Amino acid sequence: MGGREFVTTDNGVFGRYRLSIQAKIYLVGAGPGDPDLLTVKAQRLIRSADTVVYDRLVSQEVLDLIPHSASRVYVGKVTGHHTLSQKEINALLVDLGRKRQRVVRLKGGDPFIFGRGGEEALALARNDIAFEVVPGITAAQACAAYAGIPLTHRGLARGVQFVSGHSKNNETLVLDQAALSDPEQTLVIYMGLANLSRIIRDLVEAGRPGDTPAAIVERGTTSNQRTVITTVDELQQAVEQHAITSPAMLIIGQVVSLAEELEWFMPWAKEMELKYA
Amino acid sequence: MGGREFVTTDNGVFGRYRLSIQAKIYLVGAGPGDPDLLTVKAQRLIRSADTVVYDRLVSQEVLDLIPHSASRVYVGKVTGHHTLSQKEINALLVDLGRKRQRVVRLKGGDPFIFGRGGEEALALARNDIAFEVVPGITAAQACAAYAGIPLTHRGLARGVQFVSGHSKNNETLVLDQAALSDPEQTLVIYMGLANLSRIIRDLVEAGRPGDTPAAIVERGTTSNQRTVITTVDELQQAVEQHAITSPAMLIIGQVVSLAEELEWFMPWAKEMELKYA
Repeated sequence: MGGREFVTTDNGVFGRYRLSIQAKIYLVGAGPGDPDLLTVKAQRLIRSADTVVYDRLVSQEVLDLIPHSASRVYVGKVTGHHTLSQKEINALLVDLGRKRQRVVRLKGGDPFIFGRGGEEALALARNDIAFEVVPGITAAQACAAYAGIPLTHRGLARGVQFVSGHSKNNETLVLDQAALSDPEQTLVIYMGLANLSRIIRDLVEAGRPGDTPAAIVERGTTSNQRTVITTVDELQQAVEQHAITSPAMLIIGQVVSLAEELEWFMPWAKEMELKYA
Repeated sequence: MGGREFVTTDNGVFGRYRLSIQAKIYLVGAGPGDPDLLTVKAQRLIRSADTVVYDRLVSQEVLDLIPHSASRVYVGKVTGHHTLSQKEINALLVDLGRKRQRVVRLKGGDPFIFGRGGEEALALARNDIAFEVVPGITAAQACAAYAGIPLTHRGLARGVQFVSGHSKNNETLVLDQAALSDPEQTLVIYMGLANLSRIIRDLVEAGRPGDTPAAIVERGTTSNQRTVITTVDELQQAVEQHAITSPAMLIIGQVVSLAEELEWFMPWAKEMELKYA
């Protein structure tokens, strides 16, 4: 036997579908912040939600799409000061799934890329609550596009990896050495500022040359976006010199060398657009 | 000096911005096919384009959004039978950028992830044609979401990498061993069917255990989606047994073990929706 195939319409599946007509929780990627970068589906779901559960990373402009009639539940987390634990959020969603009709669980970026959407989906599945997953533009894609950095590029990068610089309880090694060493892989590090010195040490130990181009994209896609182009060796100094703060994305690899030529996004123009719209 | 910062509004930037008021080429991610998974920005740009240049991977439903008044230019590539070479596409875009006002260059997925958007952006930049990049839902995100597979998940995967199974002229080694070995990285392989036996050999040589869970998602997000859950050892057999054809995405890693429990997408329901909409 070479695998299981999920195409059979058996009674179990039909049962869950019937339930889904009654009520559903939508795990929705809110993208990087700009409501223009929501998917069409996400926008429609937010506008027709009766309850929206949302994180700290969901922007005000996206929240402004929620109808006045809908309940809003903030479950944002700040490092070291959780409003609700993940377990409590899971329980809340299960509870809402039993009571409400159209619950939208909004998560910054994509729910299945550093969004812990899998944990919430598991809680729902294990409690027979119907759900759907709506992918969103993840921060890596958004920051790369708005910084003029192709994540893959012939001759420079034949693959890309997304890792988190923020480890669970800070106890394990943040990054795997072997996975960092390929010079033809672009490396995108989410939430890397807090552990920056460790990340740089890991990169160097993994064999990435110190002159490998590196970009820091702070507040990507917003009118406050700043892009700093540097190298692995000078990354720490660049972050300090430009007083970079979260949220910031690190992009490491040869593709970063294209950023200056491919620069197209003008934050000041975006701000003018917002002001005179 | 710790890096260059791109926030100065110098005359050069302002010059390019003025040009952009006149005409612009939008490099737009068309997502996985479902127009519901376009970004709001992509949808608006397509609807107001005067010229749309598009690939083979852009779906009919997305093309149906193009206004009747707009010109459509097909530049799709089929392996071994290119309608236009990449160089010719670049030249076409430069030419259109000089002649037309609102050109949308539609690319399946995300333009900067295996979309060769960087090459087109470079051609435009080098010819002083103003452009914007609009990220799209890439196939890895879409297939993962619709197969119930979180790409990252606490305890199972702390990172994800996207690689292409389709190498340039088939001459170089497809995958880097070191980059494949981390058991806590999810590996997503685009266009992997043609080189499947080589990919499996590389995975095993890189030290991924043969019983590592593996998923094949064929025609992800469409009403014809099929998901096959297997292992690295049985991947080849599964592809043959289920007669999998392109486009198909391979997802390798412990996260695949969650697919059965997190299954939510019912292709037959989607087909009914389309039929009775």
